[in-house]
Amino acid sequence: MLSKMSNGGILVVGSVALDSVETPFGARDNALGGSATYFSISAGFFNRVNIVATVGTDFPRRSMDLLRKRGIGLDGLTVDNGKTFRWKGRYRPDLNTVDTIYTHLNVFKTFDPRIPHELRSLRYVFLANIDPVLQAKVLASVRKPALVACDTMNYWIQSRKKELVALLKKVDMLLLNDSEARELSQDANLIRAARWIISRGPGIVVIKKGEHGALCVSRNSCFAAPAFPLTTLRDPTGAGDSFAGGMIGYLSRVKKHDDATIRKAIIYGSVMGSYCVEDFGVNRLLRLTPNEIQKRFQELRRLTSF
Amino acid sequence: MLSKMSNGGILVVGSVALDSVETPFGARDNALGGSATYFSISAGFFNRVNIVATVGTDFPRRSMDLLRKRGIGLDGLTVDNGKTFRWKGRYRPDLNTVDTIYTHLNVFKTFDPRIPHELRSLRYVFLANIDPVLQAKVLASVRKPALVACDTMNYWIQSRKKELVALLKKVDMLLLNDSEARELSQDANLIRAARWIISRGPGIVVIKKGEHGALCVSRNSCFAAPAFPLTTLRDPTGAGDSFAGGMIGYLSRVKKHDDATIRKAIIYGSVMGSYCVEDFGVNRLLRLTPNEIQKRFQELRRLTSF
Repeated sequence: MLSKMSNGGILVVGSVALDSVETPFGARDNALGGSATYFSISAGFFNRVNIVATVGTDFPRRSMDLLRKRGIGLDGLTVDNGKTFRWKGRYRPDLNTVDTIYTHLNVFKTFDPRIPHELRSLRYVFLANIDPVLQAKVLASVRKPALVACDTMNYWIQSRKKELVALLKKVDMLLLNDSEARELSQDANLIRAARWIISRGPGIVVIKKGEHGALCVSRNSCFAAPAFPLTTLRDPTGAGDSFAGGMIGYLSRVKKHDDATIRKAIIYGSVMGSYCVEDFGVNRLLRLTPNEIQKRFQELRRLTSF
Repeated sequence: MLSKMSNGGILVVGSVALDSVETPFGARDNALGGSATYFSISAGFFNRVNIVATVGTDFPRRSMDLLRKRGIGLDGLTVDNGKTFRWKGRYRPDLNTVDTIYTHLNVFKTFDPRIPHELRSLRYVFLANIDPVLQAKVLASVRKPALVACDTMNYWIQSRKKELVALLKKVDMLLLNDSEARELSQDANLIRAARWIISRGPGIVVIKKGEHGALCVSRNSCFAAPAFPLTTLRDPTGAGDSFAGGMIGYLSRVKKHDDATIRKAIIYGSVMGSYCVEDFGVNRLLRLTPNEIQKRFQELRRLTSF
């Protein structure tokens, strides 16, 4: 039965962290965060997700229980001696820029992902934002993925470009933000940047533009997805991973990757990202309902139809 | 006959200028430009446009001939003693920012717009980006407009805020870019900024976001229009006025202002703005065909449908 569920579920490798953030609307200390966490809670509305990550012995039991109670698979989450990965950021007044106050890798410094045998047959894989060397290692353990999506960030583009470009060959979809796409391709034009990435492997490039939505470029299609026009925005942390969760979650549920399905998946991504930022940390996602997801999906359709 | 044509046409007050620009792709000196010029050539694809503006005795006869041959009404364009308004700008490498090298108002320093009698019954009015005091004066001369749209810029928001806010009461639609909307409303959130403006008069606010498209907010609706994803972008000058030209041109041709029509009008605006920036000055608009306009309208529909 586990094997059957696994085949239909998602594998994500990324961080499970304790985040401290300051925004103009308040501050939170050591709250549950990390790319794999946001992704899993978001994708969990669409399918079963299994996390590959590590936490320290200080990781709160209530956070572990929270993830478990949401049906997230934790067989690949190891508890290592040491402290959990911690990050602190301070957002500027416009919320578009965050200054990192500290990054303590802690147990991630020596993280050596091992994929439990029963997770290796999962068909949908999300390589959240960690060292491309670790992303490649996880991917090598997966048997026959139907779709591999990958995220990255400027830090890896600068420090691990060779490894990242090598990884791109094995990836179906790259998600990254606009400044990262420009930096990776060395081209300020986003369409040309996406084509540069496509020529390195991924058939689909999703460029996230925050409040300006997302652009999805493939060999034969280009799709511009809007961001939901929010008036309440408290904490942008996790928006990108929640976006990826909605997108990969939906794709893994319908098990199709044609252009029309990918467009819908991106809208679900936009929905999940927009809810995420309405409150601090994972708080808004935790009280989100499937009805609200459908409602905002329809609102995005009205927002763009002509 | 003139009266009949006038009733169906558009009145625009704004600048007719000689622009010098430098972009990473080249430079042009003293080329035909100005807000009324871009607007008229763009809107001219949809309806007859009549310009209210002033030029100096140095304004090239070939530019005057060019406007006339495109069917643009020049009865309200006066030739005053002195030099034509001149502006020079240098775009930064990403083309998103322009540094003004000089602005020589010249004949615009003493411009006192007088609307020829036969133009006062025009029903569609575009108050392009000039002093709000002049915009209000022109508007006061128009008898019974069906739709008054207005543009502005940071300079007037800073120096003529009181006059601008007073003008808003008489305006149906305000077009401005995102930074201007934020500055005018003193609110970083674009939706709240639009609502602030709506509470001052205009039922419709169109916020132009350059490469990120446009957002149209009214009391009951919100529409996010994409920008066409260009790979060739040579000179952003005039994009906003070409956008307004496509929008007002379409509205004046179909003579409806319901939500569905306004959405289509904004897409025509996006089409015209996107063509404008493909070449220097008005060059691309001059060789544009109606077929190309329809083609890109359909491409924008494909770009956003899901």
